[in-house]
Amino acid sequence: MLVVMQAHATEEQVRAVCQKIESLGYRAHAMPGATRTAIGITGNQAEIEQGTLDEMAGVQEVIRVSKPYKLVSRDVKEENTVIKFAGTQATIGGKNLAIIAGPCAIESREQAFAVAERVHRAGAQFFRGGAYKPRTSPYSFQGLAEDGLRIMAEIREQFGMKIITEAIDNESLALVEEYADVIQIGARNMQNFSLLKRVGRAKKPVMVKRGLSATLEEFFMAAEYVMSEGNYNVVLCERGVRTFADHTRNTLDLSIVPAVQRLSHLPIVVDPSHGTGKRNKVTPLSRASVAVGADGLIVEVHNQPDKALSDGMQSLYPEQFDELMVQVRQIAAVVGREIVPIGTVASLSSSVETPPDTRMATLR
Amino acid sequence: MLVVMQAHATEEQVRAVCQKIESLGYRAHAMPGATRTAIGITGNQAEIEQGTLDEMAGVQEVIRVSKPYKLVSRDVKEENTVIKFAGTQATIGGKNLAIIAGPCAIESREQAFAVAERVHRAGAQFFRGGAYKPRTSPYSFQGLAEDGLRIMAEIREQFGMKIITEAIDNESLALVEEYADVIQIGARNMQNFSLLKRVGRAKKPVMVKRGLSATLEEFFMAAEYVMSEGNYNVVLCERGVRTFADHTRNTLDLSIVPAVQRLSHLPIVVDPSHGTGKRNKVTPLSRASVAVGADGLIVEVHNQPDKALSDGMQSLYPEQFDELMVQVRQIAAVVGREIVPIGTVASLSSSVETPPDTRMATLR
Amino acid sequence: MLVVMQAHATEEQVRAVCQKIESLGYRAHAMPGATRTAIGITGNQAEIEQGTLDEMAGVQEVIRVSKPYKLVSRDVKEENTVIKFAGTQATIGGKNLAIIAGPCAIESREQAFAVAERVHRAGAQFFRGGAYKPRTSPYSFQGLAEDGLRIMAEIREQFGMKIITEAIDNESLALVEEYADVIQIGARNMQNFSLLKRVGRAKKPVMVKRGLSATLEEFFMAAEYVMSEGNYNVVLCERGVRTFADHTRNTLDLSIVPAVQRLSHLPIVVDPSHGTGKRNKVTPLSRASVAVGADGLIVEVHNQPDKALSDGMQSLYPEQFDELMVQVRQIAAVVGREIVPIGTVASLSSSVETPPDTRMATLR
Amino acid sequence: MLVVMQAHATEEQVRAVCQKIESLGYRAHAMPGATRTAIGITGNQAEIEQGTLDEMAGVQEVIRVSKPYKLVSRDVKEENTVIKFAGTQATIGGKNLAIIAGPCAIESREQAFAVAERVHRAGAQFFRGGAYKPRTSPYSFQGLAEDGLRIMAEIREQFGMKIITEAIDNESLALVEEYADVIQIGARNMQNFSLLKRVGRAKKPVMVKRGLSATLEEFFMAAEYVMSEGNYNVVLCERGVRTFADHTRNTLDLSIVPAVQRLSHLPIVVDPSHGTGKRNKVTPLSRASVAVGADGLIVEVHNQPDKALSDGMQSLYPEQFDELMVQVRQIAAVVGREIVPIGTVASLSSSVETPPDTRMATLR
Repeated sequence: MLVVMQAHATEEQVRAVCQKIESLGYRAHAMPGATRTAIGITGNQAEIEQGTLDEMAGVQEVIRVSKPYKLVSRDVKEENTVIKFAGTQATIGGKNLAIIAGPCAIESREQAFAVAERVHRAGAQFFRGGAYKPRTSPYSFQGLAEDGLRIMAEIREQFGMKIITEAIDNESLALVEEYADVIQIGARNMQNFSLLKRVGRAKKPVMVKRGLSATLEEFFMAAEYVMSEGNYNVVLCERGVRTFADHTRNTLDLSIVPAVQRLSHLPIVVDPSHGTGKRNKVTPLSRASVAVGADGLIVEVHNQPDKALSDGMQSLYPEQFDELMVQVRQIAAVVGREIVPIGTVASLSSSVETPPDTRMATLR
Repeated sequence: MLVVMQAHATEEQVRAVCQKIESLGYRAHAMPGATRTAIGITGNQAEIEQGTLDEMAGVQEVIRVSKPYKLVSRDVKEENTVIKFAGTQATIGGKNLAIIAGPCAIESREQAFAVAERVHRAGAQFFRGGAYKPRTSPYSFQGLAEDGLRIMAEIREQFGMKIITEAIDNESLALVEEYADVIQIGARNMQNFSLLKRVGRAKKPVMVKRGLSATLEEFFMAAEYVMSEGNYNVVLCERGVRTFADHTRNTLDLSIVPAVQRLSHLPIVVDPSHGTGKRNKVTPLSRASVAVGADGLIVEVHNQPDKALSDGMQSLYPEQFDELMVQVRQIAAVVGREIVPIGTVASLSSSVETPPDTRMATLR
Repeated sequence: MLVVMQAHATEEQVRAVCQKIESLGYRAHAMPGATRTAIGITGNQAEIEQGTLDEMAGVQEVIRVSKPYKLVSRDVKEENTVIKFAGTQATIGGKNLAIIAGPCAIESREQAFAVAERVHRAGAQFFRGGAYKPRTSPYSFQGLAEDGLRIMAEIREQFGMKIITEAIDNESLALVEEYADVIQIGARNMQNFSLLKRVGRAKKPVMVKRGLSATLEEFFMAAEYVMSEGNYNVVLCERGVRTFADHTRNTLDLSIVPAVQRLSHLPIVVDPSHGTGKRNKVTPLSRASVAVGADGLIVEVHNQPDKALSDGMQSLYPEQFDELMVQVRQIAAVVGREIVPIGTVASLSSSVETPPDTRMATLR
Repeated sequence: MLVVMQAHATEEQVRAVCQKIESLGYRAHAMPGATRTAIGITGNQAEIEQGTLDEMAGVQEVIRVSKPYKLVSRDVKEENTVIKFAGTQATIGGKNLAIIAGPCAIESREQAFAVAERVHRAGAQFFRGGAYKPRTSPYSFQGLAEDGLRIMAEIREQFGMKIITEAIDNESLALVEEYADVIQIGARNMQNFSLLKRVGRAKKPVMVKRGLSATLEEFFMAAEYVMSEGNYNVVLCERGVRTFADHTRNTLDLSIVPAVQRLSHLPIVVDPSHGTGKRNKVTPLSRASVAVGADGLIVEVHNQPDKALSDGMQSLYPEQFDELMVQVRQIAAVVGREIVPIGTVASLSSSVETPPDTRMATLR
């Protein structure tokens, strides 16, 4: 259920409706929009009896949402969610095209800095790297754990890039939440509901990767799990699904980008590295991802792909990433996007305003 | 790597080889067989240098295993793994056909006992029921938690059936390990490697359900994760995979049963309830599962399917389960299996021996 | 639309209704049942106006069928279709379990006879073999064409087995119709609608194999194409679908057997050879196919699989087929089926009656 | 096998090698390139004995091709195949981005002309429309047949657009070959090998659409069938594959575009209409298709989508197609493509030269 407040409803009225909802044993999620506030109602039991909320002060309409996802839906929040970060105008969602790059795994300080220096110079605003690696074999390299997180924190300090890294369980999540700017939930954990709930109580934005055989609705429900606990800063990530096709490791499903944007206010980025599993496909599919309207890219780059401890075959050489950025910038311009530099902290201090989403006007 | 000991090797020799392996920074897994012991070697780094173990007393051969799964493989253990339980000859693996039945979720003491009474009477040896439910929606019934476990413990006490139930995270695992006889890892957690490692340190057998898009190798690697931590009592469970086909909820892949039995010593059971998602398909697919050679069945039964809090559409009515058992017993007989009654505790106390696996002789 | 005639309706009344339907620009398909006749109405345009047929003599009811398939549906014909052959009680559909065996391709007279002698001795009633092979490569062996058909005709003469072979286009169909007892339409041609229509005008029964990615409805629609042209003797054949799973060549979808039997009156057989693509999986999946309720099996057998010109890896050795038949007979007995010998022509001449379908009574 | 001729080899030498190959019972396919000619050798039997051709005049090298596809491969022809049409510089392949648009089916002269006028004005160079429709139901509209072809011929005359339409069997192929500029083979016929061979003897270019579950290799083999009969003017078309995903009718697999371009010299276009099945996804996926590097688009446009006899839900309104063209032109410019107008017949007569393929230089 969803309560749409009147345009002129006061904060007090919103609070009163929320309290009423909570008093009935449900949970209220106030989502302020540009012109009015909507209040999502979630909870285990049957729906709130008709008439209970309709007559309260400031309430315009009570809508029954028939889709299983509620907080994810554009019905609840019409404007695109734009995730902002302290000290930069680079956002995820909005006019900025978010560029997330880095190695699959943090292997050493030297390797991580070598990659970071290159991707930063090419224009990446976010640095990715795994400190905890969910590997199919228990005998494979499992990541540097907290040492890896510390290296990434140093990289943030030196280059200004925001850090995104994966949490694989409650233990790693506690540390990732401490060190990172965005917490990644991997494809194999997309239906680890216990972890989703826990990350829903974290204070950092969350990027949820689509499971290998997840439908759009299941993808949304994973985000709903996070949001139902109160963390509304969720980014979705398409990273390829499993099909019979064998010319790529996975089949990158770009049609999910407009599908997500139609039904949800959440931003969605694309991972062409896992999505194809092949170095020579990453750049063309990056162009396609931006052209289809994605809110960002997450790309694997390694200084020595042939010696990478994981996923070397799909990691770009730094010079390939340079070339990718040249091409992607041109496509971005066509679809009304720009790649805001991360490192302009000083110049921004005077005006930290939300960049207007002009994309819809140009291409949708 | 794998060390095959000589037939007459002493326990001391086995121990010495294990100590040598551990001293080199690896992990040794001694797997006693009918005629000889094999020692699996696992670990993160490169292989042990040639010649290091070959000359030790009692060692017959050192084999390099090229498959990514090691402890799961028949190369390491030729005889079928047979999982035994205190006080009964009903096993999982071996000549017995394991019959696991019960409701999707434990909803109340009344419901659970009503179902338990019926499935026990029909011949089920194991009682299934969810106390922790991994639901796609955060707003759906999530299970009775420890209350549900307590109800199942009572059912074990009253009917003698062994209890199998799912753990969804470390917290629930601690309790499930305490109450249950078999710990279930659900399909959506098949690649929750953190949970797999943790359950590998549990003292109870583990049933790992195949993920919705898991290949055979990934399925084996999930079991390998559990075994690599020292818990060798693993049962695999086929429960349908996700395909384009829409006449069933999932596509039950029965060909994986002979594929598993060819490459691995682990038992495999089939879940035709989740595998089809439709009540009217459960009995024919149960017949097929037994005919193909499965080591057991796991079937959802509910006393009032239409009022079930989860998965009602695929739950059998108790009388349908009665009929299923009649048919399955006949097929079992043809493939050299029998359904050992669970409740003959007294009569068994004198001779708790491994039932010989005569199946291979008759049908494979 | 569907006209259900009264139990005592005369042939003349049936004919009058059919003529009325045809006069309105539609096509009438009279389907006599055990107690009454149903008349399926098909055609391109909108439905016949209400009231036009209801009042005609002998008409009991006019039913609007909302499913896209009409003649295939049990709504039109409640009793199972049983396909009979001159001079034998072996049927496809009904109590008999149809056993179809032979090499993938007819390679030579010697090879074909060697295989035929063995499968006949083991109990096969139908001999399969390709004279026209749809090969993925234009440079592969394409079959012996009419020479292959002649060899199969000789085999029928010598052993009494009925012949089933594939037609791949109109040219081959003309010859296959002349020589064979059942015309096979291959999986890759399941949506070759032009060929389906042409085979719908043939005078021989047709076996339609499921396409590699066909849904149940598409499978039915392929049969509907054949039936819409007046050929009602259609057998469906499950032969595996394409999924991500890589332990078998295709994923055999046994759940489609009860799904077909629930919605349609047509018989369905299973092809575990193409369905798995691996020799060691054929026998267990044959057992499962019979157990699930299939109306027959189609199995590849070769006297020298290692030298086969096509599909050698999935062809059984003759002695493996002997063993398969031993096992399958036992399962058949449990599900109320029997394997009627083909070669009892003389003894049958006195009583060629339809074998009663007792299957439903026992296991469904 | 493949014979690479020397750069200065004479036509006579090429002819002599071809004659030698044919005399040995094989088929020779001379493929002239920019600097040298390659001769593909195909045929049923074992390979030509080593040394037979190596010493002939003008031969530089004899290469054994291990892939199952030969004529399709870049090994045989390094330069991109560019398909040209009389009286226009609009090509399929090369620098031009081919724009193919029109209704799913030709329904009437009025409808066809209404759509043609609009897509021509927006810049389409090729007009598509079905005269023979492969419909899943025998009771659905099956196309206007030759009447439809005649309407398309009139459209060519009036607007200058080249005509592309589907042949579904040998009968329709004879007529389509007569009227159309490009013969389309539909997805459901991608493995109708008989039809592929027949179209391989046609004198018009052929567009082969990818089957719903075709791997890249199978897709190539379909083209190989056509080319093995001597028709080298083949265009591939990605139109979505069947997966579990349900937010679109099919899953458009854009990664196949760079995969095709890496291994083959054939052009590949993308059909976002069938690839998504939803009107609102066509434009974003068209942008993505051009960005990924496709050689063209094939888009369904209808003047009254809501009244379309087939596929109305995925057909664009004319004004949506106008907007699509605006966006696509911008993306095309970024990837080094341009959309050459079709109707500049007069101005071209003086210089009909191959447009240089500068694409590789810019973006690959």
